[in-house]
Amino acid sequence: MKAALVCVGTELLFGQITNTDAVYLSQQLNVLGFDVLYHYTVGDNPGRLGKTLKLAFEDCGLVITTGGLGPTQDDMTKETVCDIFNEKMVFDKKSAESIKEVFIKLNREMTDNNLRQAYFPSEAEIFYNDAGTAPGFALSKDDKTIICLPGPPREMARMFELQAKPYLEMKSDGKICYRMIRTFGIGESSLETALLDLIDGQTDPTLATYAKDGECGLRDASKRATKEESEKAVDDMVHKVKDRIGEFIFSIDDENLYEVTARRLIEKNISVSCAESCTGGLFAEMLSRAPGISKVFDRGIVTYSNRAKIDELGVSEETLEKHGAVSVETAVEMARGLRKKTGSRLCISITGIAGPDGGTDEKPVGMFCVCAIFDDKEVSKEVRQRNVNRIVNRNYCMLYMMNLVNKMIQ
Amino acid sequence: MKAALVCVGTELLFGQITNTDAVYLSQQLNVLGFDVLYHYTVGDNPGRLGKTLKLAFEDCGLVITTGGLGPTQDDMTKETVCDIFNEKMVFDKKSAESIKEVFIKLNREMTDNNLRQAYFPSEAEIFYNDAGTAPGFALSKDDKTIICLPGPPREMARMFELQAKPYLEMKSDGKICYRMIRTFGIGESSLETALLDLIDGQTDPTLATYAKDGECGLRDASKRATKEESEKAVDDMVHKVKDRIGEFIFSIDDENLYEVTARRLIEKNISVSCAESCTGGLFAEMLSRAPGISKVFDRGIVTYSNRAKIDELGVSEETLEKHGAVSVETAVEMARGLRKKTGSRLCISITGIAGPDGGTDEKPVGMFCVCAIFDDKEVSKEVRQRNVNRIVNRNYCMLYMMNLVNKMIQ
Repeated sequence: MKAALVCVGTELLFGQITNTDAVYLSQQLNVLGFDVLYHYTVGDNPGRLGKTLKLAFEDCGLVITTGGLGPTQDDMTKETVCDIFNEKMVFDKKSAESIKEVFIKLNREMTDNNLRQAYFPSEAEIFYNDAGTAPGFALSKDDKTIICLPGPPREMARMFELQAKPYLEMKSDGKICYRMIRTFGIGESSLETALLDLIDGQTDPTLATYAKDGECGLRDASKRATKEESEKAVDDMVHKVKDRIGEFIFSIDDENLYEVTARRLIEKNISVSCAESCTGGLFAEMLSRAPGISKVFDRGIVTYSNRAKIDELGVSEETLEKHGAVSVETAVEMARGLRKKTGSRLCISITGIAGPDGGTDEKPVGMFCVCAIFDDKEVSKEVRQRNVNRIVNRNYCMLYMMNLVNKMIQ
Repeated sequence: MKAALVCVGTELLFGQITNTDAVYLSQQLNVLGFDVLYHYTVGDNPGRLGKTLKLAFEDCGLVITTGGLGPTQDDMTKETVCDIFNEKMVFDKKSAESIKEVFIKLNREMTDNNLRQAYFPSEAEIFYNDAGTAPGFALSKDDKTIICLPGPPREMARMFELQAKPYLEMKSDGKICYRMIRTFGIGESSLETALLDLIDGQTDPTLATYAKDGECGLRDASKRATKEESEKAVDDMVHKVKDRIGEFIFSIDDENLYEVTARRLIEKNISVSCAESCTGGLFAEMLSRAPGISKVFDRGIVTYSNRAKIDELGVSEETLEKHGAVSVETAVEMARGLRKKTGSRLCISITGIAGPDGGTDEKPVGMFCVCAIFDDKEVSKEVRQRNVNRIVNRNYCMLYMMNLVNKMIQ
């Protein structure tokens, strides 16, 4: 069944809050086998809300709303739903009592408008709210279903999980399964070219590419009669993709590259240290985001100045003079110096020109040199990429280092 | 003028990514004086995208789209816009050349589909993209304006700021001026209480608070007949705000705390080094985002293990045993050891419990100790905050360090 989300709240339109309700509900609905076609966000305005709901029902059999169920004058979701479904609002005694109870517990005075929350469309199935004051509801009529949930993310998620989901599971016509395949070192268009027939030729499973901060991903999704069938279809596609571009894949479970790398280092108990120049500590920072990394991460040294490279890592003045701070020679001496100092099994170094200034014809912005030593294996490399944005360059350098470590320890 | 956002991307409908583009653009458009009435999210589907664009233009004179400008088959934003505006797609030589250049620099083969990115509606004003390969554009016709931006948040924000915003400013009736006042160390409700009459009592300039990743901000905006008038109104409000909460303000120009700190260190030519434990390199990374920081940033040492704290910074084993790695005593020895080693005028250290594990009743997750030495002044402090999220904690630690440095060198 096709579905749309309608999120109600002027604060969303002001950009004051991020719409995490839409993320949560999209994930949940997809897993339940619904095709989410639209997200809409509207303010607390009955005219525009009504227009949006009508529109959503043109293409979709299910609409879920969040927000606009509060006690104030501008909370108009229920009234608007009544108009669209030709329903009347009726008083629900149980809701009224539970709202009164909340105020007694809070030792606060209840104002009359709070009782607005005890009125519902006459044929609605009410979802009582044990985490806040706004009850929600579901209403099905003429092949159209609407579910109205409160806006606060925690209340919304709890009501969805405990009440809306069981209501919907009865209505789903298939089970969806998907995997996010993530790659590094191949561009989106090359990826598409390599997989063109798989992307174009298939209706189920579907395969779609997307680019994301220096890496590329693939979404591999299937919807079949049973969960087992859709899982099998998705896994078969993973095998086909692996056969063609396996060397670039670092995760089939939507993990970040730094998470995969940190997890493997921890699992394999490989001690690790890093020496960074152009990335300024980014590699150490991303690696140490992983809880439990203290088991293997010894230290990171950000040798920004030449003096620091000499003092901390024993890079020779001669190398710095002859080849420059950004050179494979310097990177190699950094990694070797780090190994000597720390004894870590995995030592990695980087030096480069992050930009926006500091580039020359010979050594342009975006050029960087890395060296990684793992036990008795040493790899060093000069890489040039074109980007002139400092933040983008540093991020790419970090990903490159993570990928290199990940490959070496495999 | 009324405005709508249309975000294109199936990954949004799958709940794989959060729609931060909508947050950013809503904030920007509101400040520019546009009323944002709707956010729409649609998948990579020309039929539904076209329907949504038509609907958006029923109520709004301005529509901004994000996403769907890539080189692949499912990127259909430009074609759909052409249909709605009765425009033809024409080839833009400059775009084609810059796309080709990117591939030459990358030393990668360009596939034919990449050139799709060089076609635009014939009357469009093209926004060239120096941070990625997808150019955007603006198109105004019959009182309707559409602006199409790429989906990746960084590219989108850069293109908005440098190209879309100037384009829109010409179309605004009245001159808007605003300042983003940013604070650290005061909560949103305290901020609101201190400024309540200024927030509630005014229609122009308006003052609104917002909370953001460990800090709080104020948007101070005015729209008057001339730029001079609105600037004066905004600046008068800045003075009033400064009188009340000046000690917490670090920027009135929407700079990040790390940018302000880096800029001041560079301006004052103060050499700086840092020693980090719980932040894992985040302080060094954020500081070194500033172009030109190499003039003053000597080195950063991420001493994750106790061994590293002893080897690198001369922390005594006795201190580690008696007071623990997370203690003011250890932080002080870290900073003093760093000063001794580097001679940097500003040396700062941090050690703490980022979580999610590793906390005790005595030293809970969220506790951290810092020490900063500037010339002959030394400050050390133990801080406890309640958050258990590792990433949030590390970010707060970094901001705390930046704020401390910023105050010390003022």
